[in-house]
Amino acid sequence: MRRSKKERQRLLTQTIEDNPFVTDEQLAQQFNVSVQTIRLDRMELAIPELRERIKNVASKTFENEVKSLPLEEVIGEMIDIELDKQALSIYDVTPSDVFARNGIARGHHLFAQANSLAVAVIDDELALTVKSNIHFVKPVHVGDRIISKAVVTGKDDDNNRTYVNITSTVNGEVVFKGEFEMYRTKGKGE
Amino acid sequence: MRRSKKERQRLLTQTIEDNPFVTDEQLAQQFNVSVQTIRLDRMELAIPELRERIKNVASKTFENEVKSLPLEEVIGEMIDIELDKQALSIYDVTPSDVFARNGIARGHHLFAQANSLAVAVIDDELALTVKSNIHFVKPVHVGDRIISKAVVTGKDDDNNRTYVNITSTVNGEVVFKGEFEMYRTKGKGE
Repeated sequence: MRRSKKERQRLLTQTIEDNPFVTDEQLAQQFNVSVQTIRLDRMELAIPELRERIKNVASKTFENEVKSLPLEEVIGEMIDIELDKQALSIYDVTPSDVFARNGIARGHHLFAQANSLAVAVIDDELALTVKSNIHFVKPVHVGDRIISKAVVTGKDDDNNRTYVNITSTVNGEVVFKGEFEMYRTKGKGE
Repeated sequence: MRRSKKERQRLLTQTIEDNPFVTDEQLAQQFNVSVQTIRLDRMELAIPELRERIKNVASKTFENEVKSLPLEEVIGEMIDIELDKQALSIYDVTPSDVFARNGIARGHHLFAQANSLAVAVIDDELALTVKSNIHFVKPVHVGDRIISKAVVTGKDDDNNRTYVNITSTVNGEVVFKGEFEMYRTKGKGE
C-alpha cells in the first residue's frame, strides 16, 4: 500500500530519528518508492544524507565516551560504542590503502581499523593488544565501506585481560574476522 | 692482543665487506678498541656509517628481487631477501607511530612491517594474507629500531599456500611474533 506523501515524510523522519544509519536504498525499499523520491523527501525535510548524519553523530557523541585513547586515534569513524560491551566503526577504503598492482586493500588497514576498535571498546585508561588471531576472508577494494563491529566476549580480571571479537563487513558480507586478547590496567571489579 | 692500526684497518674493511650490517659497537668489541677509534678508522677508509650502508644496499639490490609487490610498498627498509626462504627489514619508530598518551608504538605499525615482509618474501606475482596469528610481546617506543625477520616455514602447493613466521626484535629482544598463512597464485612446482 502506498502512503500519502505527507504520511510517508512523517514516517521517514521518524525512521531516520530511530536509526540515523539507515541508507536511502533501505528507506526506498521500506516505503516502496524510488531512491530518488527518498532523496527529494530528505531535501524537503532538510534531513542530511547518510554520510553527513554519520559525521554528526560521530563528532557529537563519542569524544567523551572512549577512555583508552583520544577519539582521533581511532582508525575509521566511530559510530556507536558501549564500553566493555560493543563498538562500531566505519572505514572508507581510499586509493592509497590498496596495492597498486591489484587494487586490493592492504591487510594492515583492515587490521588497523579492527585493532583500534578493540582498544577503544575497553573501559580503561590503558588498553594494549597482547595477541590477535585474524582472518582476511574476502578482498576489499577502493570505495568499499568497511563496517567493523567489536563485541566483548569475555574477561579475565585476575590477569587483566579482556577478549574482543571483531567482524568487518562490506555490504553485509564478512571480509575480516579477528579475535583480540587485550591487556588493561584493571579488572572491572575494582 | 692489539693489532697494528694498519692490520686493524685491513681486517675492518674485510669485516664490513662480509657483513655490511655490523654496527660500530660490534666492531669495537671485535677489535678490542673504542667506538671512537672505529669511527676514525671508517673516516680514514671512507667507509660510510651503518645507516648509509643499509640505504646503499637497500636501494641497490632489491628493486628487482621482490616479485609480489613494488619495493616502495614494503613497510620499512628491506635489507635482505631470499625469495621463498627468508627476508629482513628495518623500521624506525617515529613519533607519529605511537599512542599520544603513553608513547607506545601502535600495533598496526608492527603488523604492517611484518605483514608486508611476509608478502615480499613470496616468490610470486600475487601474494595475499589469509590468516595471521600474532603476539605483541613487548612494548616498542619512539626511536626504537625494529628488525623484522621472515622465515618461510612450509608450503601447501595443492592449496596455493605458503607459511611464513615473522620475528621482530629491538636491540636483540623479541617484541613481536607472527605466523602468516599466505595465498599465492601458484605452487613452486609449476
